Order: sequence, then C-alpha cells, then structure tokens
Amino acid sequence: MSGQSSKRIWIYDTTLRDGSQAEGISLSIEDKLRIARRLDELGIPFIEGGWPGANPKDVQFFWRLKDEPLQQAQVVAFCSTRRPGKKAADDPMLQEILSAGTDWVTIFGKSWDLHVTEGLQTSLDENLAMIRETIAYLKSCGRRVIYDAEHWFDGYRHNRDYAVQTLEAAIAAGAEWLVFCDTNGGTLPHEIARICREVMDRLGDRGRDDLKFGIHTHNDSETAVANAIAAVLEGVEMVQGTIDGYGERCGNANLCSAIPNLQLKLGYRCLDPQRLPKLTETSRFVSEIANLAPDSRAPFVGLSAFAHKGGIHVSAVQRNPLTYEHISPEAVGNHRRIVISEQAGMSNVLAKARNFGIDLHKDDPTCRQLLQKLKEMENEGYQFEAAEASFELLMREVMGDRPELFELQGFKVHCDRGPGMTHAWATVKVTVEGQNILEAAEGNGPVSALDAALRKALVTFYPRVSDFHLTDYKVRIIDGSSGTSAKTRVLVESSNGVDRWSTVGVSTNIIDASYQAIVEGLEYGLLLQRPSEKVAVRV
Amino acid sequence: MSGQSSKRIWIYDTTLRDGSQAEGISLSIEDKLRIARRLDELGIPFIEGGWPGANPKDVQFFWRLKDEPLQQAQVVAFCSTRRPGKKAADDPMLQEILSAGTDWVTIFGKSWDLHVTEGLQTSLDENLAMIRETIAYLKSCGRRVIYDAEHWFDGYRHNRDYAVQTLEAAIAAGAEWLVFCDTNGGTLPHEIARICREVMDRLGDRGRDDLKFGIHTHNDSETAVANAIAAVLEGVEMVQGTIDGYGERCGNANLCSAIPNLQLKLGYRCLDPQRLPKLTETSRFVSEIANLAPDSRAPFVGLSAFAHKGGIHVSAVQRNPLTYEHISPEAVGNHRRIVISEQAGMSNVLAKARNFGIDLHKDDPTCRQLLQKLKEMENEGYQFEAAEASFELLMREVMGDRPELFELQGFKVHCDRGPGMTHAWATVKVTVEGQNILEAAEGNGPVSALDAALRKALVTFYPRVSDFHLTDYKVRIIDGSSGTSAKTRVLVESSNGVDRWSTVGVSTNIIDASYQAIVEGLEYGLLLQRPSEKVAVRV
Repeated sequence: MSGQSSKRIWIYDTTLRDGSQAEGISLSIEDKLRIARRLDELGIPFIEGGWPGANPKDVQFFWRLKDEPLQQAQVVAFCSTRRPGKKAADDPMLQEILSAGTDWVTIFGKSWDLHVTEGLQTSLDENLAMIRETIAYLKSCGRRVIYDAEHWFDGYRHNRDYAVQTLEAAIAAGAEWLVFCDTNGGTLPHEIARICREVMDRLGDRGRDDLKFGIHTHNDSETAVANAIAAVLEGVEMVQGTIDGYGERCGNANLCSAIPNLQLKLGYRCLDPQRLPKLTETSRFVSEIANLAPDSRAPFVGLSAFAHKGGIHVSAVQRNPLTYEHISPEAVGNHRRIVISEQAGMSNVLAKARNFGIDLHKDDPTCRQLLQKLKEMENEGYQFEAAEASFELLMREVMGDRPELFELQGFKVHCDRGPGMTHAWATVKVTVEGQNILEAAEGNGPVSALDAALRKALVTFYPRVSDFHLTDYKVRIIDGSSGTSAKTRVLVESSNGVDRWSTVGVSTNIIDASYQAIVEGLEYGLLLQRPSEKVAVRV
Repeated sequence: MSGQSSKRIWIYDTTLRDGSQAEGISLSIEDKLRIARRLDELGIPFIEGGWPGANPKDVQFFWRLKDEPLQQAQVVAFCSTRRPGKKAADDPMLQEILSAGTDWVTIFGKSWDLHVTEGLQTSLDENLAMIRETIAYLKSCGRRVIYDAEHWFDGYRHNRDYAVQTLEAAIAAGAEWLVFCDTNGGTLPHEIARICREVMDRLGDRGRDDLKFGIHTHNDSETAVANAIAAVLEGVEMVQGTIDGYGERCGNANLCSAIPNLQLKLGYRCLDPQRLPKLTETSRFVSEIANLAPDSRAPFVGLSAFAHKGGIHVSAVQRNPLTYEHISPEAVGNHRRIVISEQAGMSNVLAKARNFGIDLHKDDPTCRQLLQKLKEMENEGYQFEAAEASFELLMREVMGDRPELFELQGFKVHCDRGPGMTHAWATVKVTVEGQNILEAAEGNGPVSALDAALRKALVTFYPRVSDFHLTDYKVRIIDGSSGTSAKTRVLVESSNGVDRWSTVGVSTNIIDASYQAIVEGLEYGLLLQRPSEKVAVRV
C-alpha cells in the first residue's frame, strides 16, 4: 500500500468549480479556459470544469473545449443527484450536465442521513434511489461517472450503515470512482485513515477489489493535505483538490502541496516527472488569473518556501542542500533564495538572464548593476514575476541595448461625467525621429482613451502597433491601507496575435501606472519585430 | 493515550522568536511586549521571547518583563548549545541567556550527525558533551531547561543511534522537556507518529516513564499542524508553534489551528475553556502588530472560515449548524457569515436582512424585488460579498428608505503628465438642499483628486465627512481579456475611526467606478450618524 514504487495516483483538479466558489474569486469563461489549458500542460488527468445546472454560463466552457480540445486531460462536468420525487430523465439539471457533452461526469450525493431528512427533506430510501437512478441514467446516456460521497466522514460517524448503503447504491449503478468527501473539513488524519480502511476492507470483503476510491478534503482543520495523504496510504487512488488550495471557507486540499509530497516523498506517480517542475509557474499563473496575491509562504511553490536567511547555515545549504531543504526546489520549479545577501538576488538574476538566452557572469559589473536596479524597483513596488517583458527591457537598459523608440513629451487625460453621460478622452504628444506628433482619442475610460491616443500617435512610424492589442489588464493596490493615495501596480498583457507578453507599471497615479505598463507593452512588441533579435516571449 | 479526557497539553508559543524570523516581519520590543501580554491573557503557559545571544536587543524584552511581569505565562529564553571546544561557563552566548533572568530556558542541540560534522565541523562526541554540559551548567545556575532536538526526524532517519544518544545526553544532564523538532519541515504525519512512538517506547523500556516530550513542527509540507497532532496522539505533551503559523519559509505549526483541533475535537486541555474564545481576536491582534494582512482563509480564525455561500445550504446551516460546520464558530471567538453572491437565493437575502435588523419575510414582494435587483447588478459585475454597506444601501433603496443626501450634477477629472511631472485634479458639482456647490481639489492621482473634491463639496452641509477616510481601495478588472475596455469593479473601505464599512462601484470607466464606490462610502458613513438608525456595521 504505502510507498509502492510508481503506483499511479489520479489527480482531479476542481479549481474551476470548487476553487472558484471561494470568496473573492470570480472567473470568466476566458479565465477558466486559460487555467484549463495550463492544467492540461501540467498533465493533470481530470479537470472539473463547472456545474452547468447551477451556473448556466458554465456550459459554454465545455462547448468551447469541444471546439478546441485539451491535449490529454479529461474535462468533467459536475452535478447533484436528481431532485427528490423527479425522474432522472425529467430533471432539467441533468439535461444541463448532458448538454455539456463531456465523457466524464461527477455526481455528488448525500451520505449523511441528517442531510437527507433535514436538508433535502426527503426519505432515506428516496435518497438511495436518487443516487442509483441518476448514475444509471447518465451511464445510459454514455457518460462515465465519478461519485462524490458528500459529507462522507461525518455521515459515516453518525450512521455508518446508511452511509455505506449510499455508496453501494452508487456502486450498483455503475459509478467507476467512489470519492470520500470531507465536506465540512472537520475530520482529522487519523480518523480519515481509520474510516477509509474500514470501508475499503468492508467492501473488499464482499469481493469488490476492483473498486477505485478517491478523496476530497477541505482545509477547515488545516489538515486537508495531510488527510489526502492519509487516505492514499490506505489505498485511495484519486486525490481531488485545487491549485493553491483555493476554495470556499478555508479552501480545498492544495494540489501544489499534495502532489510533491506524494510523488517526491512517497514514490507515487501523480504527474509525468518531466512536468512536475511546471508546478510553481502553474501556481503563480492561477493566482494571477484569479487576481489574488500569491501566498509567499505557500509550501513548495511559495516565494519564501526555500528562502534562507543569512548566517552560518547559508553556506551549509549551498554545500549540502539536503541538510536544510526537504526537497530540491527545482523539482517543483521553484528556486532557493538567500535573503539579506547580495548573492541571493544574484542567482535569481543569473537564472533569469539565462532564461532570456543572456549569459551573464556573476562577476560581470552589469550583473551587479542590474541587481541593484532590480532591488530599487522592487522596493518601489515593481514585481517582475508576472511581467517578464518589463524585466527583459530592464536588463537591456542596464546592458545598454534598449533602443529609444520614441520620446514622450506628455499626455493629458480627461474624464467628464454629466447628467446621463460619462466621457473620457486623452491627448498624447510624442517625438519620433525628431518629429513631434500630437494625437487625441476617446475611450470607455481614461486608460483606454490613453492607449488609443498613444497608438494613433505611433502608428505612422510604427505601423505594426495596430497589430497589438491588450489582452489583459490587472490592477493591484500595493498598500491599500493608504486609501486612494496608495501605490498602484498595473499589469498589462499584450498580444500580436501569436505571442503574448506582460508588462508592469507602478505609480500612486493609476493613469501613470497604466501608461508605463502600456508603453512598455508597445515597446516590447516592437522589439519582437526586429528580425535579428531572438527574444523569449514566454509570459 | 488518545482522547484521554482533559489531559493537559502544554502550549509553547514561539511567535516572538521563531515567528519573528519570518520574511516581512520585524517586531520592536514594544511590539513583542504587547503580543506577550495578549498571549498571557489567552492563557498560553510558555512564551519563548527571544534569543539574546544572537539578538542582543532581545535581552531587554526579558528585563522589561521583570519590571512588569506577566500574569501566568512562563517566559523562556532561547539559546544554542555552547560552542565546540569552549567551556559552558566561558561561552558569552550562555552568559547572555543567563542575564535574561528567566526561570526557564530552551537549548537547541544537533541531533543529526551530518550537521555536527559538516555544519558545526566538530566531532560527534564533542556535540554530546556540548549538549550535556550546556544543560548541566544552566541547571547549576538555577534554570529549568527545555531541550529542542534540532533536525530530530531527519537525524533519526539517518543515524538513529546517534540521535538517541543526543537525547540521552540531554536527559542525563537534567532537561525537563525533550522536544522533537522537524526543523526542515519535510516529515509527514505517519512518519512523525512512527518515530515518536519508537523513541518513546525505547526510552520507556529503560524505565524513563517520567520523561516529558514535546513537538516542534514546520509547515514546508503543509502538514505542520497534522504533524503536531500525530505526535500528541503518541503521547507527546507539549506543542510548540506560533500564532497564525508565522515563521521562516512556510512557517511554524499554527497554534490557532492546533489548539482548537486538540481541545474541541480530541478532548485535550490546551487553554482554559473560558479563554479559548479569545483565539480569533488574538490572531487578528498579532497580524495587526506584525503589519501583515490577516489570512481570510485561515482555519478557525479567518474571516472566511465560517462563510457560507449559496442558497440551499444556508437555510440548512441556520436550522442545524453542525450539518455544515465542523465546530461552533463562537467556540474560538469567530462568527458565521452568510455571503451574498451570484448564487444567492432568498435565504441568503433574508439572513442578511436580519443581520441589519430588518425583518423581511420571504413572501414579501420587497424581498423578491431585492433579489431581482441583486441578480441584475451582479450580472453587471457588482459583487456585494465584500461590500456589505453597498448591499444595505441597495436594500434600503428597494424598501424606499434611502434618503438622497445630495445630487451629483457632474465631475471633471484631469490628469496631466509633462516632462518630470504628473498632476491630477478634479472638479465636482453637487446640489444639496437646492444649493449648487462647485469645488476643485488636487490629488496624487485622479481618484484621490475626485475623492478630495467631493468631500470639499459636501463638508459644509455634512461636516462629518471630514471624519471619514478611505482605509482600503481595490480594483478588479472583471473581464481582463477585453483589455482596457473591460469593466472595472472598485471596492472601497471607509472608516470613521471606530467603524469600518465597504462599498462597491462598477463601470468600464475606472474613475466612474471609483466615484460610485466612494460616494456610497460617504453616504453610508453619514447614515451611521443618524441616531434613530441602528445599522449593522460589521464588515
């Protein structure tokens, strides 16, 4: 059971469904598609995409993936059992899940008698019929079914026999996976282990060794990851969770911790070992899309996860990392940071430069200047993690290889609101190759007006700016407790239809910050056109 | 062993020492004293206050507590074993720890042979002497000693016999507590349990049943709390951790999760049951002092820990909370929140109205209208989850009880950037009680200029607006892939120095969205002043 070399654990990601139910997260269909593609690249085999019955917009997510399918992942639609007293075939919610057109569906059903009688206000027998008939119906429509036993552990503790009956109903109807869900998040690891073991033994005694079990935990006790591991050690083969542990209340099991623990320490195979190093970038990507600050203290993938403070042990770490690090940071795509030391930033900078195909030596004075400039800018609030194009421009500037494409003389932005109307326009004045150009444009708001005016001003000399468009625009207030005087950081993503690149701007003035990010976006896009340059464009 | 009713677990808080080593935390002596007094009030029995040998300022913390002692907690000074090759009495670091004048001291020593030979660069025997002699010396000076076995689990796995010898050296010298430290944070709960059990059995076999053991875990695997619990279930009686899990890298074991798990679920006694409800306020206090944003998703004490979304289960929660909550929020001083969201059904709305002292019935047409308006606005991008004041204003509007405090005639916002300068100002025109008022103001940026102009315009009729200030300002782009034409949602938090409230605004124009949020913030603040109104202010 434990430590079997390379036993497969099936990772089931519910970031787009359970994760998106978290407070403060609101994902558009585009957001979900971008995340799904990243999860697909990471090699996650199951991606739960939404609950079409509850959120009508969710079905469009599935339809879009029909047009442009993922490379390897199975996309799963989520739904409840049919309503009490209804026929499965007559339940509109189930029609919604079918219209999603996925091969796999996940059905959740009540395991706890109290939830049946008080929550659903129906009989225990009817609930069993609901489970059985819903699964049978969906199978008859050609779907493969995963069954989520909701409130499993609480239900088992309160009425063990009934809980097992609900599971047996799912098994009889042909569910291929039976997932134990700790929906309230209150169960501790030793209890998870005990209950999984008992149930699996009990079902195994009846000759059902072919059954496959999963675990779905929540972090209300701060043990979601430990709970998932405890279940796997008892023979569970699927782990449901989310990237960065996002989810309602205290979140779901954090896959960014569960996967490395299972794979690097216990010898299970969750992801293709070649793809595991993509974990950190996937984590950062999802937090960016969700517009949430990444947790620097996050295990494995956090910025501080392998940050060593100065002193004696820093040299010890470098000589023999395993004396101070539980895993090698590179195994999950993270890196060691030495804090309060010039050498720390240095290795970051060297690594980053290498990424861009620039071979800097740490003794190179340019490297030191770059590090210095980087630290200054980061102190002002710049963050280059999600704005690699800006970082590259900075590097080029320090290396003396950043051509000045135009000189900004100034801009004015106006925003008028009167009865029944709001109007925004901007005027921009630039100098290109000695010539002054003044242009004005309107926009939905001050930032789009400024963007439009700037392009108008540049298009005569740089016709290609009309190929660029902004594909994302994010604003983060760096010190919100200063109210409207806080510094603003704007992240902009641009595209020329083929490549995408991100740039950043910081200022107490949101228009100014937006301008910086936009103008660097244009600058970088124009650099991409120079045939002699080979520039890394990975965002 | 497990679940013994009211077996005492000694909580040892190292927020002020290990916790303060976290990136981004810098505690002054005053900060530490304030935290120590709060921990004392909570009833924490051991408070590790610092490492005088490493941080000379730390000794002042201990001296201040000599003058104004805590009520019940033992303050502990932390230190390493003596230097290799030195006599304990001659080691200046040990003199520092003695000068702290505490009854208790904690000494950490190396358990892992590799650390002794490569890290300390001394012999295995010398390390045993260092442990033995340091503890013996401090005892001879009248101190009671806790021994932290550093890198215990890794050391035990690599060289079990040597690790046990280090522990025996500490025992022989008279250490009263032996604490197993998972210093690298890489050990998983089942291994923690196994190793604790083996060692405690082995020492028990030698007739040492009087020994008391502790556990000190780190969160690099996201299992620090689970690890602490696993150790306690094997008979360990002290748990070392920090408030909010603060600490280097991924942090220490979070006492705000460990304590409620142990006390409320496993029947151990960590704190006086009357004081356990102080846990949440202690957590918030420490994050305030540390100047870190509290983690809203934190188990037990987080703002979202008991936040319920969605229609069906909200009514179920209110009827029978234990169907959806693993513990009662009040047990740790937290409270349930019903979150307003797209999935809001009638029951959410009713629950919220009750919070505001408004008794709506679900058959009331007002309720239906409110729900309708809510859904429309949420489709446009409004999110009331984090903007409860805006929600209340909306409710009042539907109920015909939203007084018009002023009428906006219009505003103009300007933003100029020229060589070496950026300038922002705004003009606002309002009508109050039939009188037209026009005011202008400058600001760091367009939004702060608009805010300042608006207050200037209102202050003559509503002098109290000068008491309000913005404490937080957040911007979220709702559909970022529309680039700068995307809808913007602005969330603003305001305060009058006592209460805090949040409001929201949505528009494709960021200035407009900010205006809406700001003006609702002012409106709500003014409503709070009306003596006949009892308005809920909990954000």
